[in-house]
Amino acid sequence: MSNIIDTVSWLAPDGSVHFQWTEQTLPAGGKLRIIDQRRLPEKLAYLDIDSVADACEAIQTLAVRGAPAIGCAAALALAAAGGKIETENTEEFLRRMRKNSGQLRASRPTAVNLSWALDRCMDRLEKSPHLPVQELKKELLKEALGILEEDIALCDRIGENGAALLRDGMGILTHCNAGALAAGGCGTALAPVYAAMRKGMRIKVYADETRPLLQGSRLTAWELQRAGADVTVLCDNMAAQLMREGRIQAVIVGADRIAANGDTANKIGTYGTALLAYCHHIPFYVAAPYSTFDLSLKDGSEIPIEQRDPHEVTEFSGKRIAPTGVKVCNPAFDVTPQELIRAFITDRGIIRPPFTNAENRI
Amino acid sequence: MSNIIDTVSWLAPDGSVHFQWTEQTLPAGGKLRIIDQRRLPEKLAYLDIDSVADACEAIQTLAVRGAPAIGCAAALALAAAGGKIETENTEEFLRRMRKNSGQLRASRPTAVNLSWALDRCMDRLEKSPHLPVQELKKELLKEALGILEEDIALCDRIGENGAALLRDGMGILTHCNAGALAAGGCGTALAPVYAAMRKGMRIKVYADETRPLLQGSRLTAWELQRAGADVTVLCDNMAAQLMREGRIQAVIVGADRIAANGDTANKIGTYGTALLAYCHHIPFYVAAPYSTFDLSLKDGSEIPIEQRDPHEVTEFSGKRIAPTGVKVCNPAFDVTPQELIRAFITDRGIIRPPFTNAENRI
Repeated sequence: MSNIIDTVSWLAPDGSVHFQWTEQTLPAGGKLRIIDQRRLPEKLAYLDIDSVADACEAIQTLAVRGAPAIGCAAALALAAAGGKIETENTEEFLRRMRKNSGQLRASRPTAVNLSWALDRCMDRLEKSPHLPVQELKKELLKEALGILEEDIALCDRIGENGAALLRDGMGILTHCNAGALAAGGCGTALAPVYAAMRKGMRIKVYADETRPLLQGSRLTAWELQRAGADVTVLCDNMAAQLMREGRIQAVIVGADRIAANGDTANKIGTYGTALLAYCHHIPFYVAAPYSTFDLSLKDGSEIPIEQRDPHEVTEFSGKRIAPTGVKVCNPAFDVTPQELIRAFITDRGIIRPPFTNAENRI
Repeated sequence: MSNIIDTVSWLAPDGSVHFQWTEQTLPAGGKLRIIDQRRLPEKLAYLDIDSVADACEAIQTLAVRGAPAIGCAAALALAAAGGKIETENTEEFLRRMRKNSGQLRASRPTAVNLSWALDRCMDRLEKSPHLPVQELKKELLKEALGILEEDIALCDRIGENGAALLRDGMGILTHCNAGALAAGGCGTALAPVYAAMRKGMRIKVYADETRPLLQGSRLTAWELQRAGADVTVLCDNMAAQLMREGRIQAVIVGADRIAANGDTANKIGTYGTALLAYCHHIPFYVAAPYSTFDLSLKDGSEIPIEQRDPHEVTEFSGKRIAPTGVKVCNPAFDVTPQELIRAFITDRGIIRPPFTNAENRI
């Protein structure tokens, strides 16, 4: 039995509920509701999260994925978990919150937004050790909701800035999903597309299906189709041919972490796509909010790359698609060297090369 | 009820029955037995073919695929169908055979070996209109078996010639399946690997899974693993990253049709892989028998490219992986321009650039 005080929903470009926060008194604290992306495109189902364990599972199994979305979900999950801690002792509360934050931080290694969002929440708590626990819980929730609302605004600004690079009739290739499903707001790579559509431009989006987990065909195609966009799905290995045929005028992808020199970690396959675009003289853009830049890393060689379960490659929906026992590669990300990137589309404007010492611009 | 006269089997490198021909008196003629590749890697099942309709279905649904294998299977299917024609009238026999041949020829448009093999069989018949039907049937079977046995020898020679390009410890990337399953013999792209293994070289094969139909993970990995090779499966979009890491020393692929200037049609994704190899200074080889060269075509722009059913991309094993009604690209092949090809590995030797006017060398 629960006693609901308030429910707030944030909507995606297609009008569906995107993030939802519900304040409860029984059980104490709140709960986060997000789309369960594992069920798409077959079913729009939601997942309720009010504990760190639930959030870690959702992040690891990719029920929620996409660097900015992971950051927003982790912050709100931290707030939900914090709300449930039954103590009046600030020391104990902070100790348990540090443990919660550490568990969430370990759930995925590559995206910087996860630790960035957790750091913001924990910093706010650590700066106020004089406050009573009830006040700390309110501060925490304010910070987490602030991260979500800030991301919504960041996405809108990325969209506005990126749309200035697009022209009516362009074909845009994207890889993986860096749309509303990957963010708190309307996305990073897809934000310029949504903004261009609002301005009346006709944009043809080509969505790499993005093996092994098919975020392109399952998620990008789903959200663009629902938002009324012109979207075509292709297998990853078809992109070069479409470029050669002159059907792609720009590539826009998101990012999981960007080093100080501009080297960019993103979904596996991004590097190859960037190289193919470079060979075809097609501009390759990375769209990301300032929180995705990790200026503590000199270059891409310092970005940790998550290796995922081989079964993601050898099985599909319970059916074997490779012989039993075969060896498999399954890196979740690759690093695109900055030389292949025409510009970064950020909330603070378009950043063009040279990217080194671009700190002041982001 | 059938009366079997004779059964001949040809074996693949892993020791399994690869092609089998059975002569029957009831029903008249023979029948061809081939591996049903649609069932791999889950089950090694066989398909019996003794009619043009069966053969067309097997070719169109990819129960048998790979340019040389399609040629061998079509020739033997033509012989099986010819054996069943009940007439003593040579004119009528030839008329019905032309119809059979035309139906088989239309089953897939891109691979040249299909029409090449059918032409050989039909030419042999057309040249002997004075022979009685029973003799024509024997001539036809001789030609079809000749095509199969010749392909076995061609594959062996491609293997010997290609192995000279390999070194102990090399990592070889291949795309799609151009192994024993794709040929009458031990394959084209994989023939050098099998030959190098016999010489005691340790070769690491990286098999692109090859979306949408996964010939790499389902077939290449299966046949290499059974033959004791060191094989690793990767998603197509991971190849660039492996190249960057220095794990690939050469790329070898097969071909469906090669124009006079060296432009090569092969499985979709080959062009992108060739371009990525070029950028990483990795030699890109095309392995093919002389029958895959179509000197009637000046360049690759004249090669017809088969577009296949969108459901191959949007569904997997009956499960939807893209939203209903979404637009899809699904070309079965692309054309790799000759500038990206380091050399052709053929049964007649290694052909290096310039490829123009290479007619005399193939």
